Amino acid sequence: MTITITAFERSPDGGKGLARDTRVRWALEEVGQPYEVRLVSFAEMKAPAHLALHPFGQIPTYEDGSLSLFETGSIVFHLAEQHAGLLPEDPNARARAITWMFAALNTVEPPILDLTTARIFEADKPWSEERLPLVKDRVRARLDQLSARLGTADWLDGAFSAGDLLMVSVLLRLRMSGLLDEYQNLAAYVARGEARPAYVRAFAAQFAVNAPSDR
Amino acid sequence: MTITITAFERSPDGGKGLARDTRVRWALEEVGQPYEVRLVSFAEMKAPAHLALHPFGQIPTYEDGSLSLFETGSIVFHLAEQHAGLLPEDPNARARAITWMFAALNTVEPPILDLTTARIFEADKPWSEERLPLVKDRVRARLDQLSARLGTADWLDGAFSAGDLLMVSVLLRLRMSGLLDEYQNLAAYVARGEARPAYVRAFAAQFAVNAPSDR
Repeated sequence: MTITITAFERSPDGGKGLARDTRVRWALEEVGQPYEVRLVSFAEMKAPAHLALHPFGQIPTYEDGSLSLFETGSIVFHLAEQHAGLLPEDPNARARAITWMFAALNTVEPPILDLTTARIFEADKPWSEERLPLVKDRVRARLDQLSARLGTADWLDGAFSAGDLLMVSVLLRLRMSGLLDEYQNLAAYVARGEARPAYVRAFAAQFAVNAPSDR
Repeated sequence: MTITITAFERSPDGGKGLARDTRVRWALEEVGQPYEVRLVSFAEMKAPAHLALHPFGQIPTYEDGSLSLFETGSIVFHLAEQHAGLLPEDPNARARAITWMFAALNTVEPPILDLTTARIFEADKPWSEERLPLVKDRVRARLDQLSARLGTADWLDGAFSAGDLLMVSVLLRLRMSGLLDEYQNLAAYVARGEARPAYVRAFAAQFAVNAPSDR
Protein backbone atom coordinates (compact mmCIF):
# COMPACT_ATOMS: atom_id res chain seq x y z
CA MET A 1 0.00 0.00 0.00
CA THR A 2 1.34 3.42 -0.89
CA ILE A 3 0.72 6.40 1.38
CA THR A 4 -0.28 9.47 -0.62
CA ILE A 5 -0.57 12.95 0.85
CA THR A 6 -1.64 16.19 -0.80
CA ALA A 7 0.28 19.47 -0.71
CA PHE A 8 0.02 22.89 -2.33
CA GLU A 9 1.10 23.04 -5.97
CA ARG A 10 2.59 26.39 -4.90
CA SER A 11 2.74 27.05 -1.18
CA PRO A 12 1.87 30.64 -0.20
CA ASP A 13 5.01 30.70 1.98
CA GLY A 14 7.36 30.03 -0.95
CA GLY A 15 8.99 27.01 0.67
CA LYS A 16 9.50 28.18 4.27
CA GLY A 17 7.96 24.91 5.46
CA LEU A 18 4.94 26.52 7.11
CA ALA A 19 2.31 24.75 4.99
CA ARG A 20 0.83 21.90 6.98
CA ASP A 21 2.06 19.15 4.65
CA THR A 22 5.48 19.73 6.24
CA ARG A 23 4.11 18.47 9.58
CA VAL A 24 2.87 15.27 7.96
CA ARG A 25 6.08 14.82 5.93
CA TRP A 26 8.03 15.23 9.19
CA ALA A 27 5.95 12.57 10.95
CA LEU A 28 6.34 10.21 7.99
CA GLU A 29 10.10 10.71 8.07
CA GLU A 30 10.25 10.16 11.85
CA VAL A 31 8.51 6.79 11.50
CA GLY A 32 10.40 5.86 8.33
CA GLN A 33 7.44 5.52 5.98
CA PRO A 34 7.84 6.31 2.28
CA TYR A 35 5.09 8.43 0.73
CA GLU A 36 3.95 10.01 -2.47
CA VAL A 37 2.70 13.56 -2.87
CA ARG A 38 -0.12 14.76 -5.09
CA LEU A 39 0.13 18.49 -5.63
CA VAL A 40 -3.13 20.42 -5.85
CA SER A 41 -3.83 23.93 -7.09
CA PHE A 42 -6.05 26.35 -5.18
CA ALA A 43 -8.83 25.70 -7.71
CA GLU A 44 -8.50 21.94 -7.27
CA MET A 45 -8.66 22.29 -3.48
CA LYS A 46 -12.17 23.75 -3.76
CA ALA A 47 -13.39 21.23 -6.36
CA PRO A 48 -15.65 18.26 -5.50
CA ALA A 49 -12.96 15.58 -5.86
CA HIS A 50 -10.78 17.22 -3.19
CA LEU A 51 -13.72 18.25 -0.99
CA ALA A 52 -14.69 14.57 -0.84
CA LEU A 53 -11.31 13.96 0.80
CA HIS A 54 -11.20 17.19 2.81
CA PRO A 55 -14.54 18.88 3.59
CA PHE A 56 -12.78 22.16 4.44
CA GLY A 57 -10.90 22.29 1.13
CA GLN A 58 -7.43 22.34 2.59
CA ILE A 59 -4.20 20.36 2.48
CA PRO A 60 -2.83 17.94 3.57
CA THR A 61 -4.93 14.85 3.11
CA TYR A 62 -3.76 11.29 3.70
CA GLU A 63 -4.69 8.20 1.71
CA ASP A 64 -3.58 4.67 2.45
CA GLY A 65 -5.58 1.94 0.78
CA SER A 66 -9.19 2.24 1.87
CA LEU A 67 -8.44 4.87 4.52
CA SER A 68 -8.53 8.57 3.80
CA LEU A 69 -7.99 11.22 6.46
CA PHE A 70 -7.71 14.98 6.76
CA GLU A 71 -6.62 17.26 9.66
CA THR A 72 -2.90 17.31 10.30
CA GLY A 73 -3.34 16.41 13.97
CA SER A 74 -5.32 13.32 13.07
CA ILE A 75 -2.87 12.22 10.38
CA VAL A 76 0.12 12.67 12.68
CA PHE A 77 -1.71 10.76 15.41
CA HIS A 78 -2.62 7.94 13.02
CA LEU A 79 1.04 7.59 12.00
CA ALA A 80 2.13 7.73 15.65
CA GLU A 81 -0.32 4.99 16.54
CA GLN A 82 0.65 2.73 13.62
CA HIS A 83 4.42 3.03 13.94
CA ALA A 84 6.99 3.32 16.71
CA GLY A 85 8.85 6.56 17.26
CA LEU A 86 6.31 9.29 17.98
CA LEU A 87 4.49 8.17 21.13
CA PRO A 88 5.93 6.55 24.28
CA GLU A 89 4.86 3.00 25.16
CA ASP A 90 4.03 3.74 28.81
CA PRO A 91 0.26 4.42 28.86
CA ASN A 92 0.45 7.52 31.09
CA ALA A 93 3.35 9.03 29.15
CA ARG A 94 1.46 8.30 25.91
CA ALA A 95 -1.66 10.10 27.17
CA ARG A 96 0.48 13.09 28.17
CA ALA A 97 2.15 13.21 24.74
CA ILE A 98 -1.29 13.21 23.12
CA THR A 99 -2.21 16.06 25.49
CA TRP A 100 0.64 18.12 24.03
CA MET A 101 -0.62 17.40 20.50
CA PHE A 102 -3.97 18.93 21.41
CA ALA A 103 -2.29 21.76 23.34
CA ALA A 104 -0.23 22.67 20.28
CA LEU A 105 -3.24 22.74 17.96
CA ASN A 106 -6.04 24.00 20.20
CA THR A 107 -4.30 26.28 22.73
CA VAL A 108 -1.04 27.55 21.21
CA GLU A 109 -1.77 27.68 17.48
CA PRO A 110 -5.02 29.73 17.47
CA PRO A 111 -3.48 33.01 18.74
CA ILE A 112 -0.50 32.45 16.43
CA LEU A 113 -2.82 32.06 13.44
CA ASP A 114 -4.66 35.20 14.56
CA LEU A 115 -1.37 37.05 14.27
CA THR A 116 -0.94 35.78 10.70
CA THR A 117 -4.50 36.84 9.91
CA ALA A 118 -3.94 40.28 11.43
CA ARG A 119 -0.65 40.82 9.58
CA ILE A 120 -1.71 39.46 6.20
CA PHE A 121 -5.48 39.49 5.74
CA GLU A 122 -6.19 42.62 7.80
CA ALA A 123 -3.03 44.52 6.92
CA ASP A 124 -4.97 46.99 4.79
CA LYS A 125 -7.66 47.66 7.40
CA PRO A 126 -7.78 51.00 9.23
CA TRP A 127 -7.43 49.26 12.61
CA SER A 128 -4.47 47.11 11.61
CA GLU A 129 -1.66 49.03 13.30
CA GLU A 130 -3.54 49.79 16.51
CA ARG A 131 -4.82 46.22 16.92
CA LEU A 132 -1.55 44.37 16.28
CA PRO A 133 -0.04 44.85 19.79
CA LEU A 134 -3.18 43.32 21.29
CA VAL A 135 -2.87 40.24 19.07
CA LYS A 136 0.84 39.93 19.83
CA ASP A 137 0.20 40.10 23.57
CA ARG A 138 -2.24 37.19 23.28
CA VAL A 139 0.54 35.15 21.68
CA ARG A 140 2.98 36.22 24.41
CA ALA A 141 0.52 35.12 27.11
CA ARG A 142 0.69 31.57 25.73
CA LEU A 143 4.44 31.66 25.14
CA ASP A 144 5.05 32.85 28.71
CA GLN A 145 3.23 29.78 30.00
CA LEU A 146 4.80 27.36 27.53
CA SER A 147 8.27 28.71 28.26
CA ALA A 148 7.69 28.35 32.00
CA ARG A 149 6.61 24.74 31.57
CA LEU A 150 9.45 23.76 29.21
CA GLY A 151 12.09 25.30 31.47
CA THR A 152 15.48 23.81 30.69
CA ALA A 153 14.14 20.53 29.31
CA ASP A 154 14.88 19.40 25.77
CA TRP A 155 11.30 18.33 25.02
CA LEU A 156 7.91 18.91 26.65
CA ASP A 157 7.58 15.57 28.46
CA GLY A 158 10.54 13.21 28.37
CA ALA A 159 11.61 11.98 24.94
CA PHE A 160 10.67 13.71 21.67
CA SER A 161 7.06 12.88 20.74
CA ALA A 162 4.29 13.78 18.31
CA GLY A 163 3.42 16.51 20.84
CA ASP A 164 6.81 18.13 20.27
CA LEU A 165 6.51 17.65 16.51
CA LEU A 166 3.29 19.64 16.45
CA MET A 167 4.38 22.24 19.03
CA VAL A 168 7.63 22.98 17.17
CA SER A 169 5.66 23.18 13.89
CA VAL A 170 3.22 25.65 15.42
CA LEU A 171 6.00 27.80 16.93
CA LEU A 172 7.87 27.90 13.61
CA ARG A 173 5.08 30.16 12.34
CA LEU A 174 6.36 32.84 14.73
CA ARG A 175 9.90 33.09 13.44
CA MET A 176 9.25 36.01 11.09
CA SER A 177 7.46 37.99 13.81
CA GLY A 178 10.48 38.03 16.13
CA LEU A 179 8.27 36.87 19.01
CA LEU A 180 9.98 33.48 19.25
CA ASP A 181 13.32 35.14 19.93
CA GLU A 182 11.88 36.81 23.03
CA TYR A 183 11.97 33.33 24.63
CA GLN A 184 15.44 31.84 24.59
CA ASN A 185 14.35 28.35 25.68
CA LEU A 186 11.54 28.19 23.12
CA ALA A 187 13.83 29.37 20.32
CA ALA A 188 16.32 26.65 21.30
CA TYR A 189 13.48 24.09 21.48
CA VAL A 190 12.39 24.94 17.94
CA ALA A 191 16.01 24.77 16.75
CA ARG A 192 16.30 21.28 18.28
CA GLY A 193 13.24 20.23 16.32
CA GLU A 194 14.58 21.67 13.08
CA ALA A 195 17.90 19.87 13.61
CA ARG A 196 16.28 16.43 13.64
CA PRO A 197 17.25 14.50 10.50
CA ALA A 198 13.58 13.69 9.84
CA TYR A 199 12.69 17.39 9.87
CA VAL A 200 15.62 18.22 7.61
CA ARG A 201 14.40 15.66 5.06
CA ALA A 202 10.78 16.86 5.33
CA PHE A 203 11.80 20.49 4.89
CA ALA A 204 13.98 19.67 1.89
CA ALA A 205 11.15 17.72 0.25
CA GLN A 206 8.66 20.59 0.51
CA PHE A 207 11.34 23.12 -0.45
CA ALA A 208 12.02 21.19 -3.66
CA VAL A 209 8.39 21.84 -4.64
CA ASN A 210 8.12 25.43 -3.47
CA ALA A 211 11.56 27.01 -3.75
CA PRO A 212 11.39 30.54 -5.21
CA SER A 213 13.84 29.64 -7.98
CA ASP A 214 11.24 27.17 -9.22
CA ARG A 215 8.71 29.93 -9.91
CA MET B 1 -9.66 5.04 41.59
CA THR B 2 -11.75 8.19 41.51
CA ILE B 3 -11.73 10.45 38.47
CA THR B 4 -11.48 14.10 39.47
CA ILE B 5 -11.91 17.00 37.05
CA THR B 6 -11.64 20.72 37.66
CA ALA B 7 -14.22 23.33 36.70
CA PHE B 8 -14.79 27.04 37.26
CA GLU B 9 -15.98 27.99 40.75
CA ARG B 10 -18.14 30.48 38.82
CA SER B 11 -18.31 30.00 35.06
CA PRO B 12 -18.21 33.27 33.08
CA ASP B 13 -21.21 32.02 31.09
CA GLY B 14 -23.45 31.69 34.15
CA GLY B 15 -24.32 28.04 33.50
CA LYS B 16 -24.96 28.02 29.73
CA GLY B 17 -22.71 24.97 29.48
CA LEU B 18 -20.06 26.66 27.36
CA ALA B 19 -17.18 26.19 29.80
CA ARG B 20 -15.03 23.29 28.68
CA ASP B 21 -15.70 21.11 31.71
CA THR B 22 -19.13 20.45 30.14
CA ARG B 23 -17.41 18.63 27.27
CA VAL B 24 -15.55 16.37 29.69
CA ARG B 25 -18.65 15.83 31.86
CA TRP B 26 -20.53 14.85 28.69
CA ALA B 27 -17.86 12.33 27.69
CA LEU B 28 -17.81 10.89 31.22
CA GLU B 29 -21.60 10.50 31.11
CA GLU B 30 -21.50 8.88 27.65
CA VAL B 31 -19.08 6.21 28.89
CA GLY B 32 -20.81 5.85 32.26
CA GLN B 33 -17.93 6.84 34.51
CA PRO B 34 -18.61 8.55 37.84
CA TYR B 35 -16.45 11.56 38.63
CA GLU B 36 -15.79 14.21 41.21
CA VAL B 37 -15.36 17.90 40.54
CA ARG B 38 -12.94 20.27 42.23
CA LEU B 39 -14.03 23.86 41.69
CA VAL B 40 -11.27 26.43 41.23
CA SER B 41 -11.39 30.21 41.41
CA PHE B 42 -9.70 32.41 38.82
CA ALA B 43 -6.95 33.13 41.34
CA GLU B 44 -6.41 29.43 42.01
CA MET B 45 -6.21 28.73 38.26
CA LYS B 46 -3.13 30.93 38.01
CA ALA B 47 -1.46 29.58 41.18
CA PRO B 48 1.44 27.08 41.14
CA ALA B 49 -0.63 24.07 42.32
CA HIS B 50 -3.03 24.37 39.38
CA LEU B 51 -0.30 25.35 36.88
CA ALA B 52 1.45 22.09 37.76
CA LEU B 53 -1.66 20.30 36.46
CA HIS B 54 -2.40 22.72 33.62
CA PRO B 55 0.49 24.80 32.29
CA PHE B 56 -1.91 27.25 30.59
CA GLY B 57 -3.87 27.90 33.79
CA GLN B 58 -7.24 26.78 32.47
CA ILE B 59 -9.94 24.24 33.25
CA PRO B 60 -10.72 21.38 32.94
CA THR B 61 -8.00 19.09 34.20
CA TYR B 62 -8.35 15.34 34.68
CA GLU B 63 -6.84 13.23 37.45
CA ASP B 64 -7.14 9.47 37.79
CA GLY B 65 -4.63 7.83 40.11
CA SER B 66 -1.13 8.60 38.86
CA LEU B 67 -2.35 10.13 35.59
CA SER B 68 -3.10 13.82 35.22
CA LEU B 69 -4.11 15.41 31.93
CA PHE B 70 -5.19 18.77 30.58
CA GLU B 71 -6.67 19.84 27.19
CA THR B 72 -10.29 18.89 26.68
CA GLY B 73 -9.56 17.10 23.40
CA SER B 74 -6.97 14.91 25.08
CA ILE B 75 -9.20 14.11 28.06
CA VAL B 76 -12.15 13.20 25.82
CA PHE B 77 -9.84 11.05 23.68
CA HIS B 78 -8.43 9.31 26.75
CA LEU B 79 -11.95 8.45 27.95
CA ALA B 80 -12.93 7.32 24.45
CA GLU B 81 -9.91 5.04 24.30
CA GLN B 82 -10.46 3.55 27.76
CA HIS B 83 -14.20 2.90 27.50
CA ALA B 84 -16.67 1.82 24.84
CA GLY B 85 -19.18 4.28 23.41
CA LEU B 86 -17.26 7.19 21.91
CA LEU B 87 -15.15 5.64 19.15
CA PRO B 88 -16.09 2.91 16.64
CA GLU B 89 -14.23 -0.39 16.76
CA ASP B 90 -13.48 -0.57 13.04
CA PRO B 91 -9.95 0.89 12.67
CA ASN B 92 -10.73 3.10 9.66
CA ALA B 93 -13.97 4.42 11.20
CA ARG B 94 -12.07 5.06 14.43
CA ALA B 95 -9.38 7.08 12.61
CA ARG B 96 -12.08 9.12 10.87
CA ALA B 97 -13.86 9.84 14.17
CA ILE B 98 -10.55 11.06 15.61
CA THR B 99 -10.20 13.24 12.52
CA TRP B 100 -13.48 14.96 13.41
CA MET B 101 -12.20 15.55 16.95
CA PHE B 102 -9.25 17.46 15.54
CA ALA B 103 -11.46 19.19 12.93
CA ALA B 104 -13.76 20.46 15.69
CA LEU B 105 -10.92 21.84 17.78
CA ASN B 106 -8.38 22.98 15.19
CA THR B 107 -10.50 24.01 12.18
CA VAL B 108 -14.01 24.92 13.36
CA GLU B 109 -13.44 26.26 16.89
CA PRO B 110 -10.72 28.90 16.21
CA PRO B 111 -12.89 31.25 14.10
CA ILE B 112 -15.76 30.74 16.58
CA LEU B 113 -13.51 31.74 19.47
CA ASP B 114 -12.36 34.75 17.44
CA LEU B 115 -15.98 35.84 17.29
CA THR B 116 -16.24 35.59 21.09
CA THR B 117 -13.01 37.58 21.43
CA ALA B 118 -14.27 40.23 19.02
CA ARG B 119 -17.64 40.53 20.73
CA ILE B 120 -16.45 40.47 24.32
CA PHE B 121 -12.79 41.46 24.63
CA GLU B 122 -12.70 43.93 21.74
CA ALA B 123 -16.24 45.27 22.15
CA ASP B 124 -14.91 48.60 23.43
CA LYS B 125 -12.37 49.07 20.64
CA PRO B 126 -12.92 51.69 17.95
CA TRP B 127 -12.77 49.02 15.21
CA SER B 128 -15.22 46.66 16.87
CA GLU B 129 -18.34 47.34 14.79
CA GLU B 130 -16.56 47.57 11.46
CA ARG B 131 -14.53 44.40 12.02
CA LEU B 132 -17.31 42.13 13.28
CA PRO B 133 -18.81 41.25 9.84
CA LEU B 134 -15.35 40.08 8.71
CA VAL B 135 -15.06 37.77 11.73
CA LYS B 136 -18.58 36.44 11.22
CA ASP B 137 -17.87 35.68 7.57
CA ARG B 138 -14.87 33.58 8.59
CA VAL B 139 -17.18 31.54 10.80
CA ARG B 140 -19.71 31.22 7.96
CA ALA B 141 -16.99 29.96 5.62
CA ARG B 142 -16.43 27.00 7.96
CA LEU B 143 -20.12 26.44 8.62
CA ASP B 144 -20.86 26.40 4.87
CA GLN B 145 -18.36 23.57 4.46
CA LEU B 146 -19.45 21.67 7.55
CA SER B 147 -23.11 21.96 6.59
CA ALA B 148 -22.34 20.67 3.08
CA ARG B 149 -20.51 17.67 4.49
CA LEU B 150 -23.13 16.81 7.12
CA GLY B 151 -25.98 17.03 4.61
CA THR B 152 -28.98 15.08 5.89
CA ALA B 153 -26.99 12.73 8.11
CA ASP B 154 -27.59 12.52 11.84
CA TRP B 155 -23.88 12.51 12.73
CA LEU B 156 -20.66 13.34 10.91
CA ASP B 157 -19.55 9.78 10.11
CA GLY B 158 -21.94 6.97 10.95
CA ALA B 159 -22.81 6.57 14.64
CA PHE B 160 -22.37 9.31 17.25
CA SER B 161 -18.70 9.59 18.26
CA ALA B 162 -16.27 11.74 20.24
CA GLY B 163 -15.94 13.75 17.02
CA ASP B 164 -19.62 14.68 17.21
CA LEU B 165 -19.35 15.36 20.94
CA LEU B 166 -16.63 17.95 20.32
CA MET B 167 -18.19 19.40 17.15
CA VAL B 168 -21.58 19.91 18.83
CA SER B 169 -19.82 21.46 21.84
CA VAL B 170 -17.93 23.87 19.59
CA LEU B 171 -21.05 24.83 17.62
CA LEU B 172 -23.00 25.47 20.84
CA ARG B 173 -20.82 28.55 21.33
CA LEU B 174 -22.58 30.09 18.31
CA ARG B 175 -26.14 29.91 19.60
CA MET B 176 -26.20 33.45 21.00
CA SER B 177 -24.81 34.91 17.76
CA GLY B 178 -27.68 33.62 15.63
CA LEU B 179 -25.19 32.20 13.12
CA LEU B 180 -26.09 28.60 13.90
CA ASP B 181 -29.70 29.22 12.89
CA GLU B 182 -28.55 30.21 9.40
CA TYR B 183 -27.85 26.49 8.86
CA GLN B 184 -30.90 24.34 9.44
CA ASN B 185 -29.06 21.02 9.36
CA LEU B 186 -26.35 22.22 11.75
CA ALA B 187 -28.94 23.62 14.18
CA ALA B 188 -30.74 20.25 14.10
CA TYR B 189 -27.40 18.44 14.56
CA VAL B 190 -26.63 20.48 17.68
CA ALA B 191 -30.16 19.86 18.99
CA ARG B 192 -29.63 16.10 18.52
CA GLY B 193 -26.49 16.35 20.61
CA GLU B 194 -28.22 18.32 23.34
CA ALA B 195 -31.04 15.76 23.45
CA ARG B 196 -28.70 12.91 24.34
CA PRO B 197 -29.32 11.78 27.95
CA ALA B 198 -25.60 12.00 28.69
CA TYR B 199 -25.54 15.66 27.57
CA VAL B 200 -28.65 16.44 29.59
CA ARG B 201 -26.97 15.04 32.72
CA ALA B 202 -23.71 16.88 32.01
CA PHE B 203 -25.52 20.17 31.42
CA ALA B 204 -27.56 19.79 34.60
CA ALA B 205 -24.42 19.05 36.64
CA GLN B 206 -22.61 22.20 35.48
CA PHE B 207 -25.82 24.24 35.77
CA ALA B 208 -26.15 23.22 39.41
CA VAL B 209 -22.79 24.89 40.04
CA ASN B 210 -23.27 27.96 37.89
CA ALA B 211 -26.98 28.77 37.84
CA PRO B 212 -27.59 32.52 38.20
CA SER B 213 -29.85 31.94 41.23
CA ASP B 214 -26.80 30.58 42.99
CA ARG B 215 -24.96 33.90 42.75
